[in-house]
Amino acid sequence: MEFPSKLIENAVGELSKLPGIGKKTALRLALHLLKAETDTTASLAEALAKMRFEITYCRTCHNISDTEECSICANKLRDHSTVCVVSDIRDVIAIENTAQYQGVYHVLGGVISPIEGIGPSDLNIDSLLVRIPDSEIKEVILAISPTMEGDTTAFYLSRKLRDYEGVHISTIARGIPMGGELEYADEITLGRSIVDRQRQTR
Amino acid sequence: MEFPSKLIENAVGELSKLPGIGKKTALRLALHLLKAETDTTASLAEALAKMRFEITYCRTCHNISDTEECSICANKLRDHSTVCVVSDIRDVIAIENTAQYQGVYHVLGGVISPIEGIGPSDLNIDSLLVRIPDSEIKEVILAISPTMEGDTTAFYLSRKLRDYEGVHISTIARGIPMGGELEYADEITLGRSIVDRQRQTR
Repeated sequence: MEFPSKLIENAVGELSKLPGIGKKTALRLALHLLKAETDTTASLAEALAKMRFEITYCRTCHNISDTEECSICANKLRDHSTVCVVSDIRDVIAIENTAQYQGVYHVLGGVISPIEGIGPSDLNIDSLLVRIPDSEIKEVILAISPTMEGDTTAFYLSRKLRDYEGVHISTIARGIPMGGELEYADEITLGRSIVDRQRQTR
Repeated sequence: MEFPSKLIENAVGELSKLPGIGKKTALRLALHLLKAETDTTASLAEALAKMRFEITYCRTCHNISDTEECSICANKLRDHSTVCVVSDIRDVIAIENTAQYQGVYHVLGGVISPIEGIGPSDLNIDSLLVRIPDSEIKEVILAISPTMEGDTTAFYLSRKLRDYEGVHISTIARGIPMGGELEYADEITLGRSIVDRQRQTR
């Protein structure tokens, strides 16, 4: 694609480096910014640069944070005896939005993936193991996506965590999602949902 | 959606103002930038700001340009007697990419749309009419999308252009697109494609 201006060509080039944004979408975004007030572009550029250069990661749980300790770890009202281990910051945001969890988190920053060359040492696993004896942790919830890599990571972690006495390990429940149709569920999920059935309280 | 950091909240807020980008996509883009090198974000932010603040529009055809006169208007090798009138800069890029057109352009900057409050005076129509007597223009091609508003604009323009003697008015051909199935084409397009049939050269 040829552009009548180097400036727009650069902007389109940079935008199309973002995941899921091709040349055509990038051009649409660039032309949208050109039509909008200059303020729109200025505040977008500033917000992105500020985010990238000023953001820090919580020294305890590796969640993104504006301060050295994130707002979840710093919150005394939360249950610091329960740690939910997730692979990504997005998972923290997703679980927080359910408003069902009162414990703290530990962000691994990925999953073990030999194909992509990501081993246990590339993840925030050591800091989790160090964290356990230092604190009052009683339960570690492994909330890792049930993919091949996720299951490998969860298996590795549960082996490592077995050595810590008095620490329970749990995983998030597998089952039929809300609105899901039984007949379309895969066999493993359906089987697990029957084995792990919940007795109704009267 | 709640975010663990004001910085990321701002970035997501700004990104989700872009067309076709919702909160979830914006978060994915922001987290992608956080994972990538700081350079990626710096050059994206710089390219966007530079584009918005430094870009100019060609004084002749209103195409985007890095200089006062765009590279197409400044090109002496192009056919300055043919002007292709388009509604948007994107159309210039699309036509240029076909490598089939050697004339110059005139960008209206939109189409007449009473619903959106866009009248002829909001578009670059006067500058087109001024441009014709001043130059050697012999043909004006109306390359405006065949929508309700586009047809209104084309009709308005052809009425205005009628007063200029020696200037031919033409419209882009309507017909069955490449790869299109005859049976799925609408009646008007199919009818036009038969009326405007092209005799094959032997």
